[in-house]
Amino acid sequence: MELFQGLSPVALADTMICARTHELRAETRIFYQGDGAARAYALIVGGVRISQSGSDGEQVVIRFVAPGEMFGTVALFTDRRYPAEAVTLTQSVALSWSEADMLELMTRYPRIAVNLVGILGRRLQEVQERFREIATQSVERRIAHALLRLAEKAGENTGQGTEIDFPLTRKHVAEMSGTTLYTVSRILTRWEKSGWIVTSNQRVTLCDFTRIIRIAEDGVD
Amino acid sequence: MELFQGLSPVALADTMICARTHELRAETRIFYQGDGAARAYALIVGGVRISQSGSDGEQVVIRFVAPGEMFGTVALFTDRRYPAEAVTLTQSVALSWSEADMLELMTRYPRIAVNLVGILGRRLQEVQERFREIATQSVERRIAHALLRLAEKAGENTGQGTEIDFPLTRKHVAEMSGTTLYTVSRILTRWEKSGWIVTSNQRVTLCDFTRIIRIAEDGVD
Repeated sequence: MELFQGLSPVALADTMICARTHELRAETRIFYQGDGAARAYALIVGGVRISQSGSDGEQVVIRFVAPGEMFGTVALFTDRRYPAEAVTLTQSVALSWSEADMLELMTRYPRIAVNLVGILGRRLQEVQERFREIATQSVERRIAHALLRLAEKAGENTGQGTEIDFPLTRKHVAEMSGTTLYTVSRILTRWEKSGWIVTSNQRVTLCDFTRIIRIAEDGVD
Repeated sequence: MELFQGLSPVALADTMICARTHELRAETRIFYQGDGAARAYALIVGGVRISQSGSDGEQVVIRFVAPGEMFGTVALFTDRRYPAEAVTLTQSVALSWSEADMLELMTRYPRIAVNLVGILGRRLQEVQERFREIATQSVERRIAHALLRLAEKAGENTGQGTEIDFPLTRKHVAEMSGTTLYTVSRILTRWEKSGWIVTSNQRVTLCDFTRIIRIAEDGVD
């Protein structure tokens, strides 16, 4: 688990004593946007989607959480409201810690706090990059970048190529890359006809990785 | 300084012993994007612009740093390369710490690490909001949001209204809100003609705050 990297076995045992285990079905809402933030979560098995809505109801996907990653943690250290909602993609298992326990652990083992700084730093860099992409790049490039990030996070090699190992609808791809469902459908259909990707059963497989990288870099498909 | 909030006077003295002071003229580049990250900075006086360029040369403004804020810190905890460049807006004074000293301070005073988690968390929330805005909102709303954020961070009350207290060109406003210089000029000129803002000498003053808030919320100007 990324948060506890580098801890001694004794320290690890300490972190587990105060953790609560959650077994969750697919499509379970773990917390709502705006809820008071009471616990920090780590995903053990499965997948979670973090989405944010604006006052006008428009939604974007902030990120997909893979096993080993934290979620819902930032709110404990800011304004104590979850800034987004968390919904399981598949059957999942998560651990959680209360705010008091997490602060106590961080004070006892400063390495946890240093790890958390690194985690938030990497996430900040990713969102800044996505901001730059959406501000300056074509929609083809943004979709290619989104798929490559997911493949890096949750890619499984199959006979056909690299499958992104959780349910991914075209609406989610649109909400990740800041475009419309219509545009995503048009582009993914073209890529599928060219044999670069396969989509079936809400799974996306990148068959021609080099081509998707080239689109991400040059914007030409 | 946000990083050292809540520290005892003794701990504060410890943080200052290993700090280096930098006196910087306007338009000084403190570090380049891609440079190896060696030091974490805190701004004491003045202003700093953090910008990121893509491989295609397109640039976005990541944020403006106000006195009391940290910059260049995230890279120490991630891949050790500055992901953006830092340039002073005006004559400025900054402090900096080496990576080794910063880690040592965070281990000795876990409160520093907890503060840093809060700082990065709030910054992450802001970038996520800007991402959602650019993905879903009109350019008028995004420009209004950008000006309101700057006014909150560096606003000074003058007879005319709230002046954003550092040099701000239309190009920077464009790079913050993910649009073109042409569009920003067209919109700001219209707002200025309506008496809602005044721009002179690279300073922007919000004269009709309520109107700018309404544009940020409703998108109608």
